[in-house]
Amino acid sequence: MPDAAVPIAGNRFLLVGGASLVGSATAAELLDHGAAEVVLFDNFAFGSEEAVAHLRDHPRLRLVRGDVMRLPDLLRAAEGAAGALLLAAYMTLSMDRDPWGGLDVNIRGVQNALEACRANRVRKAVFASSNAVYGYGPGVSGELVEPTPFHSQGAPPAAILYGASKIIGEQLCRDYGRKHGLHHVTLRYSTVYGERQHYRAANALYIIETIDRVRRGLAPQVLGDGSETKHFVYVGDLARANRMAFESAATGVAVNCSGPEPITTLELVRLVTELAGGGPAPEFVGEEPGKVRLTSGGPFRIAHEEAERAIGWRPEVGMREGLRRLIAWRDGNEGRAGA
Amino acid sequence: MPDAAVPIAGNRFLLVGGASLVGSATAAELLDHGAAEVVLFDNFAFGSEEAVAHLRDHPRLRLVRGDVMRLPDLLRAAEGAAGALLLAAYMTLSMDRDPWGGLDVNIRGVQNALEACRANRVRKAVFASSNAVYGYGPGVSGELVEPTPFHSQGAPPAAILYGASKIIGEQLCRDYGRKHGLHHVTLRYSTVYGERQHYRAANALYIIETIDRVRRGLAPQVLGDGSETKHFVYVGDLARANRMAFESAATGVAVNCSGPEPITTLELVRLVTELAGGGPAPEFVGEEPGKVRLTSGGPFRIAHEEAERAIGWRPEVGMREGLRRLIAWRDGNEGRAGA
Repeated sequence: MPDAAVPIAGNRFLLVGGASLVGSATAAELLDHGAAEVVLFDNFAFGSEEAVAHLRDHPRLRLVRGDVMRLPDLLRAAEGAAGALLLAAYMTLSMDRDPWGGLDVNIRGVQNALEACRANRVRKAVFASSNAVYGYGPGVSGELVEPTPFHSQGAPPAAILYGASKIIGEQLCRDYGRKHGLHHVTLRYSTVYGERQHYRAANALYIIETIDRVRRGLAPQVLGDGSETKHFVYVGDLARANRMAFESAATGVAVNCSGPEPITTLELVRLVTELAGGGPAPEFVGEEPGKVRLTSGGPFRIAHEEAERAIGWRPEVGMREGLRRLIAWRDGNEGRAGA
Repeated sequence: MPDAAVPIAGNRFLLVGGASLVGSATAAELLDHGAAEVVLFDNFAFGSEEAVAHLRDHPRLRLVRGDVMRLPDLLRAAEGAAGALLLAAYMTLSMDRDPWGGLDVNIRGVQNALEACRANRVRKAVFASSNAVYGYGPGVSGELVEPTPFHSQGAPPAAILYGASKIIGEQLCRDYGRKHGLHHVTLRYSTVYGERQHYRAANALYIIETIDRVRRGLAPQVLGDGSETKHFVYVGDLARANRMAFESAATGVAVNCSGPEPITTLELVRLVTELAGGGPAPEFVGEEPGKVRLTSGGPFRIAHEEAERAIGWRPEVGMREGLRRLIAWRDGNEGRAGA
């Protein structure tokens, strides 16, 4: 079996679902570290041209339109790749709207991507999992370490479907490792935020909606009493984690990737308001009926110490700095869009 | 929304994956209680003609060859049904051999069956889930009640794929209930045994292999020290649970269906040996490498008290009586096969 450490320089990488927040940041990270070629594979259902516009003229970047539900597309895109990053997924909100497409992409899509890796002798797959594998509802609180079980009692169906689909993705990686010798590292991302932020993640919506309201002079809104925990991770930190997962000798492991520390929703809304230039005090609102909401049993922290042991990674960008960058990007971007 | 209580007499029922251990027993139970028609839908990949041979000339039974991956097959089979029992599934051993087919059937197959229920205004679906939703490995021990989370640390990939696929099936039922008003009861079966026992369930293999060895004059084999817990349920008790799930006013609930009490593998092997007419003392053997093994962290019991509260069911047949019936059936069956 070849060594599980895949150096970036001189190698080709496939980013499945790459025209995305994490995909575009990881592509830049791999190109900066000398990747011979980065292939961004996307069907542009969720991915967008804008997410990759800043990269598309890069001489070592290739954009491939394809669908994870079509194995032939993946078989071709994976040719000659030393590593593959598996990002394509429906998140909870889109899973709620379309559980047919969501289960296809998050399960069969991962299986197809792993099969394409096997067939092309790709050395290592890095799988983008989620802290959703610990579930939601009253059972979730305290320190979330990797052996924490999956809690589903009291959680909305779509959130459980999403979490369970990620558990299945992780196990498909283990199964390909065991049966076919495919090296793999699973990174359980917490909620990602940063430049090129989209509107699809239930938790990250808090950030973007607060910016929007503050910009329009409205009071930012806090659901409930604002004491709920969120644990974000900055997209640049995740891009680095993806790179280090390829480079490290680790294989067959699953580790959390979360930011330096958790935050309450009230602290978050106040911080975003301040960084966006100030605005009215937050307004406390009740739940919208029918809206999918992700809850926990109390304060929690997604522990990232195991990631440092396994792949040498730890988060570097705190919420204040990460949000500053997100807001600066958004301001610049809106300026350009309006020009 | 119509009442969630679906009487058996005079109604038509669809048993998806019905040519099976549980399907054939449930068909008999529903016919005995006056069902107008019972449709056994099966592709005969795992189901068998023998499993339903004793029923096939019944005037109110209809056998339909169809596949859960073909929605049109299900749409037609569900016409006019008041209730549908969703049994079709790969278990852990077949999931290990073919994770493509297993994820298809256990996830998309359930989704297709629920869609056929919705389109045909079937009043109630009963979903055959499993105690596998509590997982395996060191985290599993003690009293397994319905809110117990899913433990996967230290378990083989196929066992986790199976358990997670059942979690997804349960949530698809909840989702169809919430979005389309489909009444549903999820029954989390523990390991089923009884007349028409097959060789596909990892846990139930202990019983059938012990009978086989005793019959051939060989010492029955016990893996490890025999202290591991198993918690079985007799197939006739499950057939009754399925009927009562339709009849009860319960909807939107998920409850365990397990036998009167758990047993250790050593006790089981000794009991089977005794009931099969006696034989040599058991032989303690090590693990077979590569074989999928389902472990727990210590003694456990799958609590069935919630099933009594929700649908009025509790198990009636203990291991001694259930095994006696299984052995009698097997002896009679082998006699006929050899005649």
